Amino acid sequence: MSQSAYTKLEDRFHRLALLHEAGHILDWDSATIMPNGAAAARGEQVAELKALSHGILAATETGDLIEAATEQVDLNPWQRSNLDLIRRQWTRATVLPEDLVVALSKACSESETVWREARAEADFEKIRPYTETVLSLVRESATAVAEKLDLSLYDALLDQFEPGARSAEIDPVFDDLGKWLPGFLNEVLAAQERRPAIEMPQGPFPVATQRELGVKFMAALGFDFDYGRLDISLHPFCGGTPDDVRITTRYDEADFTSALMGVLHETGHAMYERGLPQDYRRKPVGLALGMSMHEGQSLLVEMQVCRSRGFLEYAAPLVRQAFNGSGPAWEVDNLHRLYSKVERGFIRVDADEVTYPAHVILRYELEKALIHDEMRLADLPEAWNQRMGDLLGITPANDREGCLQDIHWYDGAWGYFPTYTLGAMTAAQVFRAATDADPAISAGIPQGDFKPLMGWLRENIHAKGSLMPASQLLTEATGHALDPEIFKDHLRQRYLN
Amino acid sequence: MSQSAYTKLEDRFHRLALLHEAGHILDWDSATIMPNGAAAARGEQVAELKALSHGILAATETGDLIEAATEQVDLNPWQRSNLDLIRRQWTRATVLPEDLVVALSKACSESETVWREARAEADFEKIRPYTETVLSLVRESATAVAEKLDLSLYDALLDQFEPGARSAEIDPVFDDLGKWLPGFLNEVLAAQERRPAIEMPQGPFPVATQRELGVKFMAALGFDFDYGRLDISLHPFCGGTPDDVRITTRYDEADFTSALMGVLHETGHAMYERGLPQDYRRKPVGLALGMSMHEGQSLLVEMQVCRSRGFLEYAAPLVRQAFNGSGPAWEVDNLHRLYSKVERGFIRVDADEVTYPAHVILRYELEKALIHDEMRLADLPEAWNQRMGDLLGITPANDREGCLQDIHWYDGAWGYFPTYTLGAMTAAQVFRAATDADPAISAGIPQGDFKPLMGWLRENIHAKGSLMPASQLLTEATGHALDPEIFKDHLRQRYLN
Repeated sequence: MSQSAYTKLEDRFHRLALLHEAGHILDWDSATIMPNGAAAARGEQVAELKALSHGILAATETGDLIEAATEQVDLNPWQRSNLDLIRRQWTRATVLPEDLVVALSKACSESETVWREARAEADFEKIRPYTETVLSLVRESATAVAEKLDLSLYDALLDQFEPGARSAEIDPVFDDLGKWLPGFLNEVLAAQERRPAIEMPQGPFPVATQRELGVKFMAALGFDFDYGRLDISLHPFCGGTPDDVRITTRYDEADFTSALMGVLHETGHAMYERGLPQDYRRKPVGLALGMSMHEGQSLLVEMQVCRSRGFLEYAAPLVRQAFNGSGPAWEVDNLHRLYSKVERGFIRVDADEVTYPAHVILRYELEKALIHDEMRLADLPEAWNQRMGDLLGITPANDREGCLQDIHWYDGAWGYFPTYTLGAMTAAQVFRAATDADPAISAGIPQGDFKPLMGWLRENIHAKGSLMPASQLLTEATGHALDPEIFKDHLRQRYLN
Repeated sequence: MSQSAYTKLEDRFHRLALLHEAGHILDWDSATIMPNGAAAARGEQVAELKALSHGILAATETGDLIEAATEQVDLNPWQRSNLDLIRRQWTRATVLPEDLVVALSKACSESETVWREARAEADFEKIRPYTETVLSLVRESATAVAEKLDLSLYDALLDQFEPGARSAEIDPVFDDLGKWLPGFLNEVLAAQERRPAIEMPQGPFPVATQRELGVKFMAALGFDFDYGRLDISLHPFCGGTPDDVRITTRYDEADFTSALMGVLHETGHAMYERGLPQDYRRKPVGLALGMSMHEGQSLLVEMQVCRSRGFLEYAAPLVRQAFNGSGPAWEVDNLHRLYSKVERGFIRVDADEVTYPAHVILRYELEKALIHDEMRLADLPEAWNQRMGDLLGITPANDREGCLQDIHWYDGAWGYFPTYTLGAMTAAQVFRAATDADPAISAGIPQGDFKPLMGWLRENIHAKGSLMPASQLLTEATGHALDPEIFKDHLRQRYLN
């Protein structure tokens, strides 16, 4: 019997997945260990892989197979979702000419390298010409997609990270949060004033010891080092492939707390990748959902679990032991205050749970304006600093603590930022559903037993892959649609009680 | 004006080179830092890249372009050589069906993983079924090439590592060396007996310190860490790309001498890659020649330069300083005796310059017999041990120090071994020509000044890329064809004087 159109499509996407996996490992390498002089050559290598993938994906045969497979009546729900996802990818790909894809990839690769220097030197003008090029090519891509899918330019970008999300739906939520936050922040800071002062454990904390401790907690959470690594990069991320999940962090020998929580955050991402359905590996339906669910998993582990008092009851003795710590700074209560400390700060990745949405809202507004050509790139630093003043009441002293701090725009990831805060809301909602469903989850955390939690997440979230859109999965897993009030409740409970 | 057929071919091979470069980085990753559980997935990724490359190389259009370019009269000598090399690659590729290429790549990847365990456990039977598969697929590939190019099966394999080399020419050289060596070895060991006993510097020697020292010498030799790395792997190698040369070593905290010399050896390979002609990057003519010239460069640095008394005059104070060494074990004379120590040993990569050819001759004979089906794989361990007795007068206690020690056969590299000893002869001949041509080369070595040497090598060897075959380049650079008597002279001078 000859292969069906659907099976041929699966084969084609299996080959595409292999190319993507190769690219993910090269990207990890570029961000962690590649020597600087190799950046241009690496850019060409990655661009060639992307061009090849694009050629295979956008080929006429792919379209023909999709059309033929759509007629097949013998597909099960996973296969039908897979076909829908394939169609979606093909539609996106066919609106973009190959030379645009290649040009964008090269521009991002060059820009990323220069950004590393510009950020170190707090020199926005150094990176600006490269960013102009990236932005112009991103806008060109967005225009093609927007016309085809009848979306705004910004939504055409957003949709690639968070399928189905629209700025018209995000705007009111972020407007509301943006208005609620400054007042709530004042309340939180006042409540914090009334508590005992936070004592910082005193270092130095050797990198090797920090790493060992991170590895211990990763293992406790279920991370299997036969299928992944922990390394160092300037901007922490979770990369690699589901069979080789590579998370990164950056260490500060004067303060272990940030890297440790960063590792736990990325472990949340990693556990999602590791829990994806093995039966649908290398098929679009077997991949993780959009960024809000991915960030939802990392924030669930970091914010809902690891910054909770229960987790710190388990973790504090291990932390003390690792660093030979003793005294009040190392007590659970102090560590809990430390790990739920709120302050007005400049750096998003160092921000606490309360101020974080302000960082996101600012970026969301600015990137929308830049993409829609309602603002000049040259005006970005000033606009950034202005909005920081409005939302958090502080002004960056230079662009390193302002608009140069994040890799995203300089690496072409426009439309990505809102997913962080959508993820924070998702995390709160999923965690509440999980703990409501199984009391062993909350009971296990202070014991360092995360099997009940990870079991529930694997069954209800991870193993579902991309069988249904994020909004539908959230509804199935938690019983109702995304409800930002759960997030606000969580913040009130943690920070005002 | 439309592109010429030759220019279109160049474009096609540029894209192929990018895929090969991506593959080299993935291969480096597999051998150094990849988690074990990812091996199967990585095998598929690399196989897919190879299949894609093979498809592009073997396409009908490639053949048509070669035919059309052959008619072009406007090609300069570099372009003409490039076209010849392209034609050679295409011919080799078109005799192999894609499914055979994929099957071989997968088999090698699986076999390599099992070999790591089998070697650790000294369990040849554990790897044997995988090796049977690899050998059978290698033989199938060799048969196709041999028929097309009118070569013996073994020469079809040898020719891919050392273009133009034939076993009929190697046989008499190796027979002669194999007969000369046991007697010469006796003389060397007797002479060594008459010298003061070698004192081993006492450790432990921390890995980090060994690494720092290796890095210092690499930099002195001209290795630029903006374009390369030094890492750890089970079997040391030089990988990566000319813009990102990645060498590896393995450390023993009880003995720094082996890893240090290993690093210097791989640096010789690396300097060749770094010195290749920038103008012909990503064209076949711009790549390094076959393995004898490559090993010639690494052995020139290791054996001709770094184990010489002159180099050790420069190196000894730095080594003492790094490890806080003092006393007779750290004196130049002792280090020179140590680094020219000869002994009958089982492990090729630990072998000295005198016994090394015996290890190669043994492997050459056995792999020829296995490829030509004149020996069963099951009989390999016994045959290995037998020949070790003939050539070096010793018998391995187990297969870890016998036929399991090297990765080559288990990773599909059959026909590779003879190039090591061809390389040793090349190194001796090139070094003599270089030092004859420029007295500053020998004078610089005890001063730690390798610029004259590297300048001569870059101009006369590295920058020539693959403009002409190794035998012709050797003749142009040294004034005459490969002369094994120069190698014997070098051995006599170093070990009997």
